[in-house]
Amino acid sequence: METDDSKNMTLTDFPLHSYDKVRYADTDRQGHVNNAVFSQCFETGRVELLYDPARPLYDVGCTFVIASSKVDYRKEIVWPGTVVIGTAVTRIGTSSITFSQGLFQNDAMVASGETVIVHVDPQTSRSRPLSAETKLTLANHLRP
Amino acid sequence: METDDSKNMTLTDFPLHSYDKVRYADTDRQGHVNNAVFSQCFETGRVELLYDPARPLYDVGCTFVIASSKVDYRKEIVWPGTVVIGTAVTRIGTSSITFSQGLFQNDAMVASGETVIVHVDPQTSRSRPLSAETKLTLANHLRP
Amino acid sequence: METDDSKNMTLTDFPLHSYDKVRYADTDRQGHVNNAVFSQCFETGRVELLYDPARPLYDVGCTFVIASSKVDYRKEIVWPGTVVIGTAVTRIGTSSITFSQGLFQNDAMVASGETVIVHVDPQTSRSRPLSAETKLTLANHLRP
Amino acid sequence: METDDSKNMTLTDFPLHSYDKVRYADTDRQGHVNNAVFSQCFETGRVELLYDPARPLYDVGCTFVIASSKVDYRKEIVWPGTVVIGTAVTRIGTSSITFSQGLFQNDAMVASGETVIVHVDPQTSRSRPLSAETKLTLANHLRP
Repeated sequence: METDDSKNMTLTDFPLHSYDKVRYADTDRQGHVNNAVFSQCFETGRVELLYDPARPLYDVGCTFVIASSKVDYRKEIVWPGTVVIGTAVTRIGTSSITFSQGLFQNDAMVASGETVIVHVDPQTSRSRPLSAETKLTLANHLRP
Repeated sequence: METDDSKNMTLTDFPLHSYDKVRYADTDRQGHVNNAVFSQCFETGRVELLYDPARPLYDVGCTFVIASSKVDYRKEIVWPGTVVIGTAVTRIGTSSITFSQGLFQNDAMVASGETVIVHVDPQTSRSRPLSAETKLTLANHLRP
Repeated sequence: METDDSKNMTLTDFPLHSYDKVRYADTDRQGHVNNAVFSQCFETGRVELLYDPARPLYDVGCTFVIASSKVDYRKEIVWPGTVVIGTAVTRIGTSSITFSQGLFQNDAMVASGETVIVHVDPQTSRSRPLSAETKLTLANHLRP
Repeated sequence: METDDSKNMTLTDFPLHSYDKVRYADTDRQGHVNNAVFSQCFETGRVELLYDPARPLYDVGCTFVIASSKVDYRKEIVWPGTVVIGTAVTRIGTSSITFSQGLFQNDAMVASGETVIVHVDPQTSRSRPLSAETKLTLANHLRP
């Protein structure tokens, strides 16, 4: 399910760091945080880069949509607490971006994920090449 | 907290009926459905009227915002199952609408609520009078 | 809908302070944070006191349930950002607690709320008197 | 990202059918349903089998946890509407189950997913072999 590589990853393998605070409503009847909340946390790590109000990475009128995601779950996330989110760019395509991410609680990796995002023009529903400026910004966040 | 009136209300006291299906993720660590989901269900009953794609009740460019809400919780909502939502219009103001609503699971009322909604022009952030046509539609859903 | 008192409240009117981080998934198609998320934020302020793992306020085997809630919405909550949550105890009953709360974003109050919570024994589904120790702790968080 | 097989799948490729109703709160600021809600829908299809109150598939005291999930997103989910969820068992391991699932709105597949679930004893945090009876039930839901 996961490659040998991801098994040994730590927060230092991710150039971008963010966080989410766990909410009581995030828990489910099994007592831990529901799996769909992991998706919200991974999203936090991506959108703070992609939709940064100070420097958005999309062309005017365009948006980003998710093509695919893969998550390996290692441990449960518990309430109360926070989740630290590590994000790395691993591939910059013509109109797509691949992210490798890790979620950490109390210094332990609780999940790793890979997501492919596509830059899309909603008018045509077709992919739109990433601008040169966006590619340059993304290159700053490639896995070291 | 609740008036004697709401204590005896049944689904027949609400002209509009809708439903939501309870999701596993709606439950919290107490084993029942989290209180914030009650707000989502009450919203279902209102927005299926207010934002009905076939006949929206807002002026072009305007929207509805919530001014206040009050919920009385009687029983827990459990998974699996559905929630039936009863909605009545109880007051039609110049630019505001008051809704009385009830949530039912397995034929028992689990919560009652009252919500005041305001018709707003986002450009000016000010209230906008409801159109005559909207008032006419709302009048069809007044509590009998 | 709201009393003159709540209109002038600031964070200093609430002895307990907490926060939540706004998530992208909290927004809805109106572009702002959905109203049900306000309920999650108010819950954060209460449960960090009621279910504090270091010093829970419930008797062994008991739990807290919400009897009623009332929210006045003043402004929208936007992404990205955080919400600061102010919480005050305003009434300590035999088995119930009344909370007054405020949500703040960028130093402006976005909503105020009042919630009545009941201490319940799930075995009997009946209210259970608060312990003397719990009442003492709650008294430390009464509105000044 | 997706195999040629999944590209041509229809609801008839999934022996188990369920549904979720889209909520207004499921939408995000992009106007469509947030990606984390896809995870909630996939979960619906699985837990209605795994935690069926009439015939749960776990041993007493045990539970199911997610080991990994993979989702391919094809189209957006929109409000209002419902999502039909197709679920097939594709592999029955000693203590794990692999599910192939599809989400459909208005007869079009909006996403396909694969999830690996493990039967776990929370006391030991270790996997627990599936019972013979559970394997027999799961075998009824293998992809035809």
